[in-house]
Amino acid sequence: MNSQIRIVLVEPSHPGNIGGAARAMKTMGLSKLSLVRPKRFPDPQADWRAAGALDIILDAEVHETLQSAVASCVLVAATSARGRHIPWPVLESADFASLVHKKYGFSDPIGIVFGREDSGLTNDELNLCNLQVRIPASNAYGSLNLAMSVQVIAYDLFRIGMDPDSEHDVWDRNLATHRAVESFYEHLESVLTAIDFYDPDNPREAMTRIRRLFSRIELDETEVQILRGILTHMENAMN
Amino acid sequence: MNSQIRIVLVEPSHPGNIGGAARAMKTMGLSKLSLVRPKRFPDPQADWRAAGALDIILDAEVHETLQSAVASCVLVAATSARGRHIPWPVLESADFASLVHKKYGFSDPIGIVFGREDSGLTNDELNLCNLQVRIPASNAYGSLNLAMSVQVIAYDLFRIGMDPDSEHDVWDRNLATHRAVESFYEHLESVLTAIDFYDPDNPREAMTRIRRLFSRIELDETEVQILRGILTHMENAMN
Repeated sequence: MNSQIRIVLVEPSHPGNIGGAARAMKTMGLSKLSLVRPKRFPDPQADWRAAGALDIILDAEVHETLQSAVASCVLVAATSARGRHIPWPVLESADFASLVHKKYGFSDPIGIVFGREDSGLTNDELNLCNLQVRIPASNAYGSLNLAMSVQVIAYDLFRIGMDPDSEHDVWDRNLATHRAVESFYEHLESVLTAIDFYDPDNPREAMTRIRRLFSRIELDETEVQILRGILTHMENAMN
Repeated sequence: MNSQIRIVLVEPSHPGNIGGAARAMKTMGLSKLSLVRPKRFPDPQADWRAAGALDIILDAEVHETLQSAVASCVLVAATSARGRHIPWPVLESADFASLVHKKYGFSDPIGIVFGREDSGLTNDELNLCNLQVRIPASNAYGSLNLAMSVQVIAYDLFRIGMDPDSEHDVWDRNLATHRAVESFYEHLESVLTAIDFYDPDNPREAMTRIRRLFSRIELDETEVQILRGILTHMENAMN
């Protein structure tokens, strides 16, 4: 069982979908389920739909915020059909599975975030993610049920992870966690405000574009330390 | 929408799964749903779970037998995790999708048969199919929900059908329908009985092995005519 890949459901309305997602996960060897403000949980309907995956329901974490659910992750992917004002990098499900396998070898914590059944993810939630994952679907009707989306993405991860021909990249540093990168953004925003580059009362698109820039890099721990060091030196220089 | 690929559910117990399967189909551009002796249908639970795919529920065919549901198909695939006494050819879902695309170009009627939620397909039902399709899944818990299985197989068909690099085979004859091949088997069985090769009261494995042999070939119309011609000549020779 893979406990490095976390399936994160944001505000699921129907407990049946939580159970369906748990069952889908277990069939594809995933065990770590996190729920952000579920409407009804625990719930007998979730247990019933989970069938033989009740252990995943019982082990599920419940979080108040998406930030805390993905804090330890080195990569956070959003599954959302919604377009964005500022487009984010988008990978198809199979290509995402290849990336996860090639770059992370299923050994680093990765979050895959699924939005609400009716309204998906908010822009603020999408901004917390490094990339978007898309399931190829019919143009006429592309609306997959929540648990079905979990099944397809988990299937691609399982299918591609099994492939003995696929190879891992090698990297010389640990990747930075989501929490570490968020702390860097906070630090950066404070410095940008101090130097009058950025007005928190009238932010426009600046921080969104900055997030998009850095989230594409997948920073390692040393790089975050370097960036933080630069910010600290700027602060010291101003005082 | 593709109406050549028929999704056939044999004796589904839960109407929710019929609705879930319909929705899964429509997201992947499939429209043709056949139900063999559904326990509860029509049913509001099926309509609810179908969401925006209610048209597929309304157009669904209901059949008394699996034979009639797949009568016009040139290829019938069974999805069943169950092992068999005499093993049949097994393809993984993605390889099955490649075969369908390469060989049939999504233009010939193809049946994909899903068994009962609890007990799958019987041996007699499996014997009606040319091949088995398997969804790669965890050894620890490989039990996908019925509608989830439809989603994964439909996803692979959609995903691989979209690939502009994939090519079709060319064939000079129409493929024989399931009905035509079944008539050949009946004819053959009658001749084999007449020549004392085969005892219908003590069939052992003979017809199963003969079915497995011919179902691997995917006979075309001319080939079925030739085989039937041979049988007729044998009958004439005996009289």
